Amino acid sequence: MQDVQKGEELYRGKAKTVFYTNDADKLILEFRNDTSAFDGEKIEQLDRKGEVNNKFNHFIMQQLEDAGVKTQVEALISDNESIVKKLDMIPIECVVRNYAAGSLCRRLGVEEGLELSPQTFEFFLKNDALHDPMVNETHAIAFGWATQDQIDQMKVLTFKVNSILAPLFRKGGMLLVDFKLEFGVDKNGDIVLGDEFTPDGCRLWDAETKKKLDKDRFRQGLGSVVESYIEVAERIGLSL
Amino acid sequence: MQDVQKGEELYRGKAKTVFYTNDADKLILEFRNDTSAFDGEKIEQLDRKGEVNNKFNHFIMQQLEDAGVKTQVEALISDNESIVKKLDMIPIECVVRNYAAGSLCRRLGVEEGLELSPQTFEFFLKNDALHDPMVNETHAIAFGWATQDQIDQMKVLTFKVNSILAPLFRKGGMLLVDFKLEFGVDKNGDIVLGDEFTPDGCRLWDAETKKKLDKDRFRQGLGSVVESYIEVAERIGLSL
Repeated sequence: MQDVQKGEELYRGKAKTVFYTNDADKLILEFRNDTSAFDGEKIEQLDRKGEVNNKFNHFIMQQLEDAGVKTQVEALISDNESIVKKLDMIPIECVVRNYAAGSLCRRLGVEEGLELSPQTFEFFLKNDALHDPMVNETHAIAFGWATQDQIDQMKVLTFKVNSILAPLFRKGGMLLVDFKLEFGVDKNGDIVLGDEFTPDGCRLWDAETKKKLDKDRFRQGLGSVVESYIEVAERIGLSL
Repeated sequence: MQDVQKGEELYRGKAKTVFYTNDADKLILEFRNDTSAFDGEKIEQLDRKGEVNNKFNHFIMQQLEDAGVKTQVEALISDNESIVKKLDMIPIECVVRNYAAGSLCRRLGVEEGLELSPQTFEFFLKNDALHDPMVNETHAIAFGWATQDQIDQMKVLTFKVNSILAPLFRKGGMLLVDFKLEFGVDKNGDIVLGDEFTPDGCRLWDAETKKKLDKDRFRQGLGSVVESYIEVAERIGLSL
């Protein structure tokens, strides 16, 4: 791993930058302190956020790998960088919801906190200009974003991740309200979990008080954003 | 059939009124001249529209029955009224698209007229206040709008209707661009096609000129709305 050298920038996202390396099959993810919401309309720098999310993501991906989910993550190489496998990313986000919150409540007029039984599953197109519209598998196939087989695998894997992580957070006294995942295709053609799993892309509430411990603290101006992420990490056994 | 007597109003929709009858298993649908768009924000009375849609709907439902699709329609009883089976309506609309138009183009930034291969299928919640949001089957199940079995049947039936009607309109020199269906459950628990199939709830274009012959003429202020509906009817063999 020590041989991997950081190369040119491949892509700069809203919170992470992706770099080529001297190994064509590997990339470096740099987690920045940038925190964005509302399709990039609200952006702030939050001290230590890059480091916290980098380490949080590595910890969660390790748990998922241990439970049999293939992920992109290979190794932490610095406080805010990780080496990952290069994937051909599928441009749709997979969302499982255990409780109603966020866009679901706005779209369907549902009360926040309603337990969803069974859990819901949604696809969203990654497209800020279109405000990440909800789509379904027939759109994904008609527009060539994914094949039926890839869609079927992404659904199964997203529910599997839920079945692994919901109990992990529950043990830490938290509810995993919802989360989004992004997948890509590796050089063998397999579907692999990419992007990240951090409090930026999920909702986590204290199970008793329902205090929000995720990016809604930033979206809603509740303060103590990174402090809450660190609290989540510590509650699941990761010291930061 | 001559024994069925019109009773109290059960429900007044934007273009139709539904009445009880003296037979608990039957209702009367009255097609009014009201024409609405944009969740009821634009409403006009168009001469003869009730009659045209009533007869158009009866003709199409007959074609579908002949091809093995169970429908609600029993008989025309006047220019603008039909007797239908009473159904317990499922509050979601089923949409198949053969070509991109309307909300699909707005939501996904797709060019109008793009042929969709394979065809797309969407569910929308019938809720004007929420602007009929797109939903998926996991929402339908979690919120109790339909069962998995009902959802599976509605999808199969909607594609079957497409396979019957697209060639019918094609023979009349028209493209069936898209359409929405609503289903209900009859007294035996079977899924039955309800509501209506008229140019109010589908898009039809002249196959050569791409001239719009459906409710987009009203939405877009193109004029000759009812005249176009009559032209569509005549092109598929129904004289009005």
